[in-house]
Amino acid sequence: MNANPTYQPDSRLDLQFERIIDVPKELVWKAWTSPEHLMPWFCPLPWTTIDCEIDLRPGGMFRTVMRSPEGQEFPNIGCYLEVIENERLVWTSALGPGYRPTPTTTHEGTVDFLFTASIELASHAGGTKYTATVIHADEAGRKKHAEMGFHDGWGKALDQLVALAKKNINRPR
Amino acid sequence: MNANPTYQPDSRLDLQFERIIDVPKELVWKAWTSPEHLMPWFCPLPWTTIDCEIDLRPGGMFRTVMRSPEGQEFPNIGCYLEVIENERLVWTSALGPGYRPTPTTTHEGTVDFLFTASIELASHAGGTKYTATVIHADEAGRKKHAEMGFHDGWGKALDQLVALAKKNINRPR
Repeated sequence: MNANPTYQPDSRLDLQFERIIDVPKELVWKAWTSPEHLMPWFCPLPWTTIDCEIDLRPGGMFRTVMRSPEGQEFPNIGCYLEVIENERLVWTSALGPGYRPTPTTTHEGTVDFLFTASIELASHAGGTKYTATVIHADEAGRKKHAEMGFHDGWGKALDQLVALAKKNINRPR
Repeated sequence: MNANPTYQPDSRLDLQFERIIDVPKELVWKAWTSPEHLMPWFCPLPWTTIDCEIDLRPGGMFRTVMRSPEGQEFPNIGCYLEVIENERLVWTSALGPGYRPTPTTTHEGTVDFLFTASIELASHAGGTKYTATVIHADEAGRKKHAEMGFHDGWGKALDQLVALAKKNINRPR
């Protein structure tokens, strides 16, 4: 995935979606890398993101807490692997802060598959080509993630990101 | 661990050893980063390293195959996370090449704990201060690694590295 911008996803193991959005990539980057800008869009409503911690460097923590419409909370802790401003953000749930491996025993409420995700941004005719790629350990992991609604979920969240970014662009200063 | 050269290991989760060796750090780096120089010392004899593949960049593969005195072979696949020439090398068994998470199902012959390791090198009075740190997901992982003979194994391997490096220094050119 890294150092290889033309990564071809493996359809057995990976999930990917690509979209052209009419928001400059600098705003997309900001939406992904500061808690203040991430929390309002990161979960497709009626789910919400109620907490977020970002230590934006390789080895740094990426932590979010999602809340279901029923009020159940789901913490997610990951670790950034690559941070290239306005271009590429890579993180994994297989490691925590400081690259410590994630315990593989399943606790109540934890997701039972691991993934590494990348967001790639490229300028494109007044907007951004946005590519999200998620790679899994095995076919079972990919399948679970797909069945949880990967495409729908990440797509709706991106809609929310775009709507918020446009509102910020158009806000009087 | 990264971006924090004064990392203080957590005694419940980590294993560490530090040694001053009378070999320049450039030779230690070479011994860790080229298959030709790694294979002769990497396993404490009578174990041997019979294959090695190194793609020396973050996201690149670090693969070795160890052979027991009885002839059983143990492949290990990991992923580099940080590569800072002559200073710091960090890799993890929790990810494979391209940062793909390692399957957590246990196969026969695979080690049943994951770790992230770093080798830190600093110049020190004509030689090198060598610090190896291995961090685990949980106390059980640390315990298993310790019982497998971490200190003895990594210590003997380092003795082998030092002996070979000195032979190379003293070899007539």
